[in-house]
Amino acid sequence: MDAEPRSNSVRARINTIIFHVSTPAGRAFDISLLVVILASLLVVMLDSIDTVHAAYGDWLAGLEWVFTTLFAIEYLLRVYSSERPKDYVFSFYGLIDVIAILPAFIALFYPDAQYLLIVRVIRMLRVFRVLKLVPYLSQANFLLVALRASRQKIVVFLLGITTLVTVYGTLMYVIEGPPNGFTSIPKSIYWAIVTLTTVGFGDMVPKTALGQTLASLVMITGYAIIAVPTGIFTAELANAMRPEALHRECPRCEKGQHEQNASYCNRCGAALFPAPDTGASKHSESR
Amino acid sequence: MDAEPRSNSVRARINTIIFHVSTPAGRAFDISLLVVILASLLVVMLDSIDTVHAAYGDWLAGLEWVFTTLFAIEYLLRVYSSERPKDYVFSFYGLIDVIAILPAFIALFYPDAQYLLIVRVIRMLRVFRVLKLVPYLSQANFLLVALRASRQKIVVFLLGITTLVTVYGTLMYVIEGPPNGFTSIPKSIYWAIVTLTTVGFGDMVPKTALGQTLASLVMITGYAIIAVPTGIFTAELANAMRPEALHRECPRCEKGQHEQNASYCNRCGAALFPAPDTGASKHSESR
Amino acid sequence: MDAEPRSNSVRARINTIIFHVSTPAGRAFDISLLVVILASLLVVMLDSIDTVHAAYGDWLAGLEWVFTTLFAIEYLLRVYSSERPKDYVFSFYGLIDVIAILPAFIALFYPDAQYLLIVRVIRMLRVFRVLKLVPYLSQANFLLVALRASRQKIVVFLLGITTLVTVYGTLMYVIEGPPNGFTSIPKSIYWAIVTLTTVGFGDMVPKTALGQTLASLVMITGYAIIAVPTGIFTAELANAMRPEALHRECPRCEKGQHEQNASYCNRCGAALFPAPDTGASKHSESR
Amino acid sequence: MDAEPRSNSVRARINTIIFHVSTPAGRAFDISLLVVILASLLVVMLDSIDTVHAAYGDWLAGLEWVFTTLFAIEYLLRVYSSERPKDYVFSFYGLIDVIAILPAFIALFYPDAQYLLIVRVIRMLRVFRVLKLVPYLSQANFLLVALRASRQKIVVFLLGITTLVTVYGTLMYVIEGPPNGFTSIPKSIYWAIVTLTTVGFGDMVPKTALGQTLASLVMITGYAIIAVPTGIFTAELANAMRPEALHRECPRCEKGQHEQNASYCNRCGAALFPAPDTGASKHSESR
Repeated sequence: MDAEPRSNSVRARINTIIFHVSTPAGRAFDISLLVVILASLLVVMLDSIDTVHAAYGDWLAGLEWVFTTLFAIEYLLRVYSSERPKDYVFSFYGLIDVIAILPAFIALFYPDAQYLLIVRVIRMLRVFRVLKLVPYLSQANFLLVALRASRQKIVVFLLGITTLVTVYGTLMYVIEGPPNGFTSIPKSIYWAIVTLTTVGFGDMVPKTALGQTLASLVMITGYAIIAVPTGIFTAELANAMRPEALHRECPRCEKGQHEQNASYCNRCGAALFPAPDTGASKHSESR
Repeated sequence: MDAEPRSNSVRARINTIIFHVSTPAGRAFDISLLVVILASLLVVMLDSIDTVHAAYGDWLAGLEWVFTTLFAIEYLLRVYSSERPKDYVFSFYGLIDVIAILPAFIALFYPDAQYLLIVRVIRMLRVFRVLKLVPYLSQANFLLVALRASRQKIVVFLLGITTLVTVYGTLMYVIEGPPNGFTSIPKSIYWAIVTLTTVGFGDMVPKTALGQTLASLVMITGYAIIAVPTGIFTAELANAMRPEALHRECPRCEKGQHEQNASYCNRCGAALFPAPDTGASKHSESR
Repeated sequence: MDAEPRSNSVRARINTIIFHVSTPAGRAFDISLLVVILASLLVVMLDSIDTVHAAYGDWLAGLEWVFTTLFAIEYLLRVYSSERPKDYVFSFYGLIDVIAILPAFIALFYPDAQYLLIVRVIRMLRVFRVLKLVPYLSQANFLLVALRASRQKIVVFLLGITTLVTVYGTLMYVIEGPPNGFTSIPKSIYWAIVTLTTVGFGDMVPKTALGQTLASLVMITGYAIIAVPTGIFTAELANAMRPEALHRECPRCEKGQHEQNASYCNRCGAALFPAPDTGASKHSESR
Repeated sequence: MDAEPRSNSVRARINTIIFHVSTPAGRAFDISLLVVILASLLVVMLDSIDTVHAAYGDWLAGLEWVFTTLFAIEYLLRVYSSERPKDYVFSFYGLIDVIAILPAFIALFYPDAQYLLIVRVIRMLRVFRVLKLVPYLSQANFLLVALRASRQKIVVFLLGITTLVTVYGTLMYVIEGPPNGFTSIPKSIYWAIVTLTTVGFGDMVPKTALGQTLASLVMITGYAIIAVPTGIFTAELANAMRPEALHRECPRCEKGQHEQNASYCNRCGAALFPAPDTGASKHSESR
């Protein structure tokens, strides 16, 4: 809307393409960006495979420069066309956009900083910006609402888990000890986490009868308390998905929601018409 | 019903046997087909065991030809008796029926294509056609409705998982690196999937303290977020299973919903007609 | 009650002690039986440990004979005091009682049948008979109702799992093949089950890139579809735990349960008094 | 309140600082205590790592004495300032406070009792006392209510699990036997627990076809019945989180429950008094 007055300028047009998904050009831009991001991630991954690096290392480095250049141009255009450049630069995505470009330039001057290139994987996060494209976002919203609502309970749960693995890990360190691979308390706690979460790598296993008995206890604990986060999230999600209310309008004040068996509007006291289809309202209420 | 006018012809009778399960002959046909499909699957599996192949390879090959012949005859009869042969041939099951037969014939002419025989396992899918026999299908329906309703949320969840394992995998590659078995980013992502899903093969395990700390984080993440698909599906299934509401209208006040065994309208007191099919409604309600 | 007329006879008294838990003597009998069963299980287990068998084998064998004798006496008393001995002998628990005794006697005459002694573990099941003692049974009932209600859906789910592991297993056999440990289709299906259920022993692991990609798919499938049985059971259990109905009695016919907002009894059509505490009933209904 | 009359004395001031979190000094004390507890846990853990112990063993021992002294002073102050010292000393936290100090002193006189130092990990539990600081406690309450409500069902479930692993373990012992690592029934039961809980270490794996078939059954059982504790806890948590129902009575018809923002009774149309504390009720309702 602010862009109206200068809607003919190049800058405004770039702004529309880059920041607004509703126009065909904006959509095309977002889709291209998604493709380039994913391609650049693929290049980073392929380059980490020894045989591929040996055979196509130079090609991949070349491609990487193409992507970096594209991202750099995109970044400059974003800064240029943004209505409040400073806000963009220091926003979450603004920072990620810089981090997606910088490593390549730094590695140019300090060849030893090759490892820095890994940071490019952070480009992955840019994918989420493009996601405004899809209708899935409203679904993600339900999940986020439920996650936010369960946050406190999840923290309490994680605190309980932390205590459990500390105590179990220390006990295993005492019982099994260094000869059986439980060389220190932190390592034994690591084992307790591996076991409680039912991952069970098998790189450390109890060998004494007492250790195996305690391990059984850890496993059954882990198996049973998975119910806790699941229960929390399920209950919260069911809440988030509950339809907001019943629709029966008051003839006088037009308040739209009333209890199923209400005979009078509870805002203005006017008589309500009988519920037309008690069954249906009951249906939606029982959610 | 369309088959009425030519109900005396052989073709119509075959059609009834093959396509309609309601007649005794149709039932018998479907059960025989189920047995043959399962037997042919068993033969394919047994033949893949070295010792069995060495001892009974010829027998199994013979049996396989018997099954292939039976399936070929069945296929021809289906095409012949179908009311719209073209529709059948290009339908999902029509194509699977061909794929169930072809490999054997191709392997006859190109002996090197032995491996193609594996495709026969696709016969497994044919079992599902025969399932129309059982009353379990209405139950599968509940599950499918719930799965379809949760599809979008599951996609969002899988996208989140993908991001998580990419980031975790790359971090592990940087932390542990090739000396500890994390030889490339894709392989490290594979490890992250193995760990996040709490499978934990143990073929790759972190050996540094920092790696084990990050691994602990991956495991606890995986352990906690299993709550997400479970919560989604549980909430949707609860929705899908809600009784649709019984429809029995009061002749005087037209209230549409009544308890199953109600004899009088509980709004105006008028007598209700008896419930038409109490058993069925009770059945569906108690689910 | 049938026992009234001969309530002074020894037989009736034994019957009361063995079959009725409500008397102090009956309780004492059941508790002793529980202790003896658990002790005999402990003996069987300890005897299977090599070092224990070497050191205390004779003692344990002696103890075993004490338990067997006790169980034999108990069995004879049950048959003697039972009101319908034949019914008892061929009942579920009657058969288990015999199986708990027989192996010892058979092993006496055929010393080679030592392995038969394992059957004694079936005594474990006898524990459940004694459980009538505890108030937990009504809770088990909720679980059983929910399990029974979800039976059909669970069968459909298991059928889907079976298809999945067959297809995944066969694909892994084709991709990885015997050199990497996937020596036959059944063994590959075993691997697929190990992986899909997120157990992940690690005795067979994919080594090719394609195999690891497919394995990732198997793991994520397994991780996501655990939601299905959980969702089914949770929904059914919530149903089973729902209070049967509201208590508002009809003044004429005394039918005790009515819809919350009912004004007339739906059995006899008499006018109902208004719900005394709509809030409370609503509360309990919405469970 | 009892402390009023002697509110100027040192003892009362210490009491306020130590036992009451509402004052700034009390908060500061609790936060410092939390930091010291966590630091002392860190020292215990670091000291268990061989390389760290070799390099900084003396420093850590020194730090440990500092912490022990602090805890000892704190304990004495607690006893001194407590209104009923005896009650405190024999309370749960009072005992833990002693156990957190004693080992160091005992190890001073009996140097062989080094291992006793492990008991210091029990200090971990002291963290929970400090948690009264945070608002998370009301959330933990929901979880505890749900856990308490599901206790009986969980016990029934664990009893079922115990029977399952005993029977499965014994069968595996018979099928696989000592040559394949299933050396005794208890060890085989341990394997059954590892497998049923989907941990799957892989230190013991079935090698015969029959053993792998039974193992598949164990795994699928474990995979499916995780639904049981999850279902139980989810259903109970949903119950615990249900808003208690708002109590606001209609002055004319005495209907006890109304919507939060209702101004008129929806049964008789009489005006209601305004809701006394809309904010709080809304808050608790939206949970």
